[in-house]
Amino acid sequence: MQKVFQYIEDHADMYIDWLIEACNQPSVSAQNRGMTDMKEVLKKFLGNIGADVEELATKGYPIIYGELGQGKAKTLTFYNHYDVQPEDPLDQWLSEPFKAEIRDGRIFARGSADNKGNLMARICAIHAYQQVIGELPINVKFVFEGEEEVGSPHLEFFANEHPDKLQTDGIIWEGGTRGAEDKRLHVGLGVKGICYVELICKGAKNDLHSSEAAIIENPAWRLIWALATLKNEQEEILIKGFYDDIASLSETDKKIIGTMAYDEEAIKKLYAINGFLKDVSGDALKERLTAEPTCTICGIESGYTGEGSKTVLPSLAKVKLDFRLVPYQTPDKIAKLLRDHLEQNGFEDIEIIPSHGGYPFNTNPNDPFVKVVLQSVDDVYEEPPVILRNLAGSSPMYKMLRGTNIPAVQIGVANSQSNYHAPNENIFIDDYIQGIKVTAAVIKNFNNYLYNQRSEIL
Amino acid sequence: MQKVFQYIEDHADMYIDWLIEACNQPSVSAQNRGMTDMKEVLKKFLGNIGADVEELATKGYPIIYGELGQGKAKTLTFYNHYDVQPEDPLDQWLSEPFKAEIRDGRIFARGSADNKGNLMARICAIHAYQQVIGELPINVKFVFEGEEEVGSPHLEFFANEHPDKLQTDGIIWEGGTRGAEDKRLHVGLGVKGICYVELICKGAKNDLHSSEAAIIENPAWRLIWALATLKNEQEEILIKGFYDDIASLSETDKKIIGTMAYDEEAIKKLYAINGFLKDVSGDALKERLTAEPTCTICGIESGYTGEGSKTVLPSLAKVKLDFRLVPYQTPDKIAKLLRDHLEQNGFEDIEIIPSHGGYPFNTNPNDPFVKVVLQSVDDVYEEPPVILRNLAGSSPMYKMLRGTNIPAVQIGVANSQSNYHAPNENIFIDDYIQGIKVTAAVIKNFNNYLYNQRSEIL
Repeated sequence: MQKVFQYIEDHADMYIDWLIEACNQPSVSAQNRGMTDMKEVLKKFLGNIGADVEELATKGYPIIYGELGQGKAKTLTFYNHYDVQPEDPLDQWLSEPFKAEIRDGRIFARGSADNKGNLMARICAIHAYQQVIGELPINVKFVFEGEEEVGSPHLEFFANEHPDKLQTDGIIWEGGTRGAEDKRLHVGLGVKGICYVELICKGAKNDLHSSEAAIIENPAWRLIWALATLKNEQEEILIKGFYDDIASLSETDKKIIGTMAYDEEAIKKLYAINGFLKDVSGDALKERLTAEPTCTICGIESGYTGEGSKTVLPSLAKVKLDFRLVPYQTPDKIAKLLRDHLEQNGFEDIEIIPSHGGYPFNTNPNDPFVKVVLQSVDDVYEEPPVILRNLAGSSPMYKMLRGTNIPAVQIGVANSQSNYHAPNENIFIDDYIQGIKVTAAVIKNFNNYLYNQRSEIL
Repeated sequence: MQKVFQYIEDHADMYIDWLIEACNQPSVSAQNRGMTDMKEVLKKFLGNIGADVEELATKGYPIIYGELGQGKAKTLTFYNHYDVQPEDPLDQWLSEPFKAEIRDGRIFARGSADNKGNLMARICAIHAYQQVIGELPINVKFVFEGEEEVGSPHLEFFANEHPDKLQTDGIIWEGGTRGAEDKRLHVGLGVKGICYVELICKGAKNDLHSSEAAIIENPAWRLIWALATLKNEQEEILIKGFYDDIASLSETDKKIIGTMAYDEEAIKKLYAINGFLKDVSGDALKERLTAEPTCTICGIESGYTGEGSKTVLPSLAKVKLDFRLVPYQTPDKIAKLLRDHLEQNGFEDIEIIPSHGGYPFNTNPNDPFVKVVLQSVDDVYEEPPVILRNLAGSSPMYKMLRGTNIPAVQIGVANSQSNYHAPNENIFIDDYIQGIKVTAAVIKNFNNYLYNQRSEIL
């Protein structure tokens, strides 16, 4: 493999250019910007490595599906997504979000971390392997979806309609990072679930002069009071039954969580905060991050929010709420409990608009595929990786994998300073190059995959 | 006076054109749009009726001051403002806010009701009087300020720096209306005070991925919890000491409030609401509207509020709060009580940005100037007026009048469907013409002003 690694280093500039090309193409699924052009960029890169590419239609944006090396004994799948989050607030970006800029050893661009960096690293790894060694020893499948940032509404449709294309022996999932100061790579075995909703409260049919607030109901106040019943200052979520289905952590879970890297001082400095929620630190912090559900206000808006003052009684108030779920919570049940809660607390007039939901997902840490990935990480990185029971974020893994026993592992090129979903998203160039190498190593080590061992641990 | 009234009716189209010219000139003080051009419009109209016009500099927008008929025994002052509220939300306007449009007997334009309609009615009345009768029997002063919609920060400066220009025997204030179905004119004797502030809560230095909400504080939640401590669902304001200084209503106050017109069914239909706050109606509703203080969310904003979903942990949350005050609450004390309240409830990190404040103001209902105005209303309108102890809205009256014993009365051309501060602001053309007539009647009746009676009742 050293020759492949050497080739990757020698051609780093080319692989960086490929990534820049991918990042410079906007592809904001929430706003339908650049999605068609982005597909063409993907098809070109997949075509260049000899993949057979298909555009699998869905009711939304299509899945770009590729296959390479048909006929080998084992199959490895790469799941990635080609859409990105909206780039606002634009005024906080130091360079154009869709014009990648290299500063201080990093590439700054919307999508560089989430997750065009990973997507391109997979493609570049295969390219390098082919250039140095030739034909791949395994089959490779690519599942590149265009709706991950809006909750992957059609990924389940893909899994149901194309069971042959879903069939695989292991999946490298998108979304991996490493720590900021502690540079060990994170190997993720799962994700939290999510239930994302918008609550809407309506008042008079249009905004009124605020003097009328003496006698006319204010939907902003009603929404505030409703929200205050959902979670208290001790961060306890007050929805009846919310915690009922949560599995307590196993000893293995706790052991994995305990080994997780989290440089509290570095994060505090990075985010300019004095401390963490509820003053947690150490193992308690790691457990909150990976194993506690959340209820988060992602956005709230009512009335006049511009410059200066305006004496207005708003006619509408809206809030976007994001619940992160842990095994075995489900988004459907949480949405129902929320509806019940609002009704029981006298807020039956508040409308719930479901946005997207996702189940939690965890791969068994003893699966031999996990060992393949760990071996590959050892081949490339100086330090041993950190194994995460699950990431704090969510992912549509369950939509492809629920009902199968396919193992999925997350490794990637981002780091904890990558500003996911925020201004100045970026990755380190070094991480990108390492990410190409580790993908190449997985392809090679996959032949050592102890397939027969799987039945023992499932 | 019938000749003057006839002249006004015969020249209605011209006076409407004058108003349209004034409305079509934007003059948004909060955003510094069109203010300079608006001054020139005023100077032209005041010049046309022979007034000596001065631009009185302040640290903000100047006061356009005019005098007419120097040397007469008595002086009447017209206070108006030439600035208007911002016009958003623009998408709810049926015609351009700054391109006045006549539909169904109404003039639709930002500022038509608040208060270019009143301002122009005063000028037109003098014009008509001059054309028909000639020289005015009284001195007239015009105080047209440009900062009413941002809290009149420099009107007190005017009163202090120009005591000679302030000197007068009575003021016709801006802001009058009539009911929607019950068409009786409202004669207002005062206003509520106001304390308008912005609260700001800060979290991490930039927006983060919402998965981090498990361990990083969310300023939106903190602001929600803080707001929920300010007012409960029973509409009780929970700030300690908030109600302490309020004067209980006198029997005269209650009597005036009881005679107030309020067509509850019409308002419910107009605003598309099922009922009023706390299910009040009748005298209880009128007392809430005129004599109860309020705490109103005029605007709140945090995180992502655009289309679609964005999984973000906000770094900032802001709310605009408007307290309406009644005698003898003061904005300074309310702001201090709010600061104390936040600190006592563990929200010392929430910053208070003062925006503007105003004291409540009430003219003695027995003042003979009130009788002059009531007589003039009788001369023009078929039905007797409704006398309001005070309007539900606020006004900078106290800034000119505190420490003097000058009586001030509000009459005007708007109605309860005028959409003050909201989209599709409008007045009826008929009300505008009547407003010109009643102003002319006040000028005439002012000679019957029983000046000597004033000392008896003060």
